Amino acid sequence: MLGRVLNTHQQWLCRQLADLGYIVTRQVAVPDTGNDIQQAVRDALARADLVITTGGLGPTSDDITRDLIAEMLGKPLRQDTAVLGHIQQFFTARKRPMPERTSVQAQVPEGALVLHNPHGTAPGLALQVSPNPFRPGGAGTWLVMLPGPPRELRPMFTGSVVPLLKRVLPLASGFACRTLKTTGIGESVVQERIAGRLQRLVEAGLDVGYCSRPSQVDVRVAAQGAEAAHQVEEAEAIVRRLLGPRIYGVEDDDLETVIVRLLAERKATLALAESCTGGCIAHRVTNVPGASAVLLAGLVTYSNAAKQRFLGVQAETLAQHGAVSEPVAREMAEGARRETQADYALSVTGIAGPSGGTPEKPVGTVFIGLAGPSGTVTERNFNPYDRETFKQVTAQQALDLLRRSILPGPPA
Amino acid sequence: MLGRVLNTHQQWLCRQLADLGYIVTRQVAVPDTGNDIQQAVRDALARADLVITTGGLGPTSDDITRDLIAEMLGKPLRQDTAVLGHIQQFFTARKRPMPERTSVQAQVPEGALVLHNPHGTAPGLALQVSPNPFRPGGAGTWLVMLPGPPRELRPMFTGSVVPLLKRVLPLASGFACRTLKTTGIGESVVQERIAGRLQRLVEAGLDVGYCSRPSQVDVRVAAQGAEAAHQVEEAEAIVRRLLGPRIYGVEDDDLETVIVRLLAERKATLALAESCTGGCIAHRVTNVPGASAVLLAGLVTYSNAAKQRFLGVQAETLAQHGAVSEPVAREMAEGARRETQADYALSVTGIAGPSGGTPEKPVGTVFIGLAGPSGTVTERNFNPYDRETFKQVTAQQALDLLRRSILPGPPA
Repeated sequence: MLGRVLNTHQQWLCRQLADLGYIVTRQVAVPDTGNDIQQAVRDALARADLVITTGGLGPTSDDITRDLIAEMLGKPLRQDTAVLGHIQQFFTARKRPMPERTSVQAQVPEGALVLHNPHGTAPGLALQVSPNPFRPGGAGTWLVMLPGPPRELRPMFTGSVVPLLKRVLPLASGFACRTLKTTGIGESVVQERIAGRLQRLVEAGLDVGYCSRPSQVDVRVAAQGAEAAHQVEEAEAIVRRLLGPRIYGVEDDDLETVIVRLLAERKATLALAESCTGGCIAHRVTNVPGASAVLLAGLVTYSNAAKQRFLGVQAETLAQHGAVSEPVAREMAEGARRETQADYALSVTGIAGPSGGTPEKPVGTVFIGLAGPSGTVTERNFNPYDRETFKQVTAQQALDLLRRSILPGPPA
Repeated sequence: MLGRVLNTHQQWLCRQLADLGYIVTRQVAVPDTGNDIQQAVRDALARADLVITTGGLGPTSDDITRDLIAEMLGKPLRQDTAVLGHIQQFFTARKRPMPERTSVQAQVPEGALVLHNPHGTAPGLALQVSPNPFRPGGAGTWLVMLPGPPRELRPMFTGSVVPLLKRVLPLASGFACRTLKTTGIGESVVQERIAGRLQRLVEAGLDVGYCSRPSQVDVRVAAQGAEAAHQVEEAEAIVRRLLGPRIYGVEDDDLETVIVRLLAERKATLALAESCTGGCIAHRVTNVPGASAVLLAGLVTYSNAAKQRFLGVQAETLAQHGAVSEPVAREMAEGARRETQADYALSVTGIAGPSGGTPEKPVGTVFIGLAGPSGTVTERNFNPYDRETFKQVTAQQALDLLRRSILPGPPA
């Protein structure tokens, strides 16, 4: 609640649940106090068929979730000898003494299922709250408590919770979904192009969602029922026909992942010559496992001297056109290709700001160059954003120029 | 709710609010449907003096927050001509046609304050809900609606919301806090060193929090009341005395921001020679405004050929010791310094994984080199993490080696 830690659990769990077809209707975070935790769990039990809590199952004094929930539901806690044995074994295997308080993790509320934790000491717990006193007349609610550390939570969810859900809360009907990822096109334009043509499927129950980030718009289509797979397939075909080459990937694809895959498939190599993006493109490409098979070098030539020394940019070109210019972008790309012998070389030169702009070339001006087997192309863009967004958007445009050059098709 | 986007807003806003002295008691996320949004806002209005919503103010059909809240509170929407003018100007300046639907963003609920959006088209809105029908008898609640994109939300919060809060919801008593940022030391060690010495202040009401991420531990001290500033000052002095050079900055300082400042103050220049970090260090340094005054070049020499071609690493050194070795780290740093004439050159060579490890040099092995005016130093580290964490931790260690070399002091 102090904003020191990013809540990646909620994203991860929602992603898993959504792709299984479960509809998440609320995410809540509360402080580590008894009143806030009980109130949040009570509200959730009043609303949902499934409630998942994370954290608060450990041995320290602020790990109070298990006790609070047992108390609230009137379920006495009992020591589970199998769990206690697992905890003792965990410490024995690591040749560490077992701290006294650790044994509280073997306390299990009456009637709860124990979810084994191979990566830690606190087991998960699953309880059917039935009848559910907070939703009179409704069906019972399943309450699942998971440990906080991601390396314990994630395998427990996949290994124990998913099989449990499929058994106790099976989906009434079929489910299918697909995410298509686009770049180089704004959210409103995406929507204008596809919404009308999807209308018929939407009326038949298709769900269409848009997720927009700088220079990236995801389109997700999902459907339920016996026709789900067919509807999603049909929707995907429509979106692909209308957005064509603006779609660079599906599901979890990043543009850099796609680039590494396209280059590796062709056994082609890449060099980068970055000025204003300052290594952002190299950093993104090298986040992809296997990047070393395609990336030969990235040259972050921030100074003019470095542009001349490492890329062979001509002093006259710099003097005549300035470092942020089409001819310099061209010479940078061609120089990087020549010096590294790569098949493709991408270059970027621009003004990230906040200072350095002129009336003719305001902050946000950028030239991108691509030297490849069939010659050199350049483009001029205008990305008037803050410094970090400028770098990410420009990197995205450069990677997309490369993608479209590798995969020639009709203009989008 | 589909788990496609990480909720960084909640973290960022909680951080800002906590450091102003406001206590956040709940974070909620709901789907883009009328019922869920209205219910969540209603629940929040029943609970708090301040409610902040993010997102749902844009031009697409699922941007419904403004309309739903206006309807729920019975406030008619009116077109605001100043906002409409700003939106039109926004598109004119970018030489793009204004999509029809964009004008809905100029709709303002009666009585709402308009928070100007210099970075986008959707303005923020602030409303005093008084009397608050969902908290009968309580004080009125301020409801602030902010746009979703971070580059719009953040400056709007800092520029418009903070001044508004200080005016309409001033804190009853004093508040002070301080965050000290450390690197190269684990959370339990930090806690062991300082907790006992802070105990007296904690008993007098000081709040001490630790936030640990890979290769970084933040210590936050906060206090309320008339003595707040004095208590925090005293706590800071104690922590500084006990952690000394492990503290690299305060509040929002990044290590890269500190590095750029230290180098700029000394009019010193930097070059980078990165292998396994793949541009991560260059990317971080160039995120800092003013980096161009200190960074001459970053050479991402992923292939052996690039290490030889751009840094003059000897073929024999590579053959004899392998690319991941102390002699190669040394030659990379010295080569980068020689080729760029920089005052300092940092080098990194290691095995990011997931493949490429050997029994002698397992995945996670890294050598860092620093060539400077007084010679070259190297260090060997072991960072057995996933690929992206490996890059960030290694970049942090390299930048910290440079920081400690620029600022010599007693060992921590």
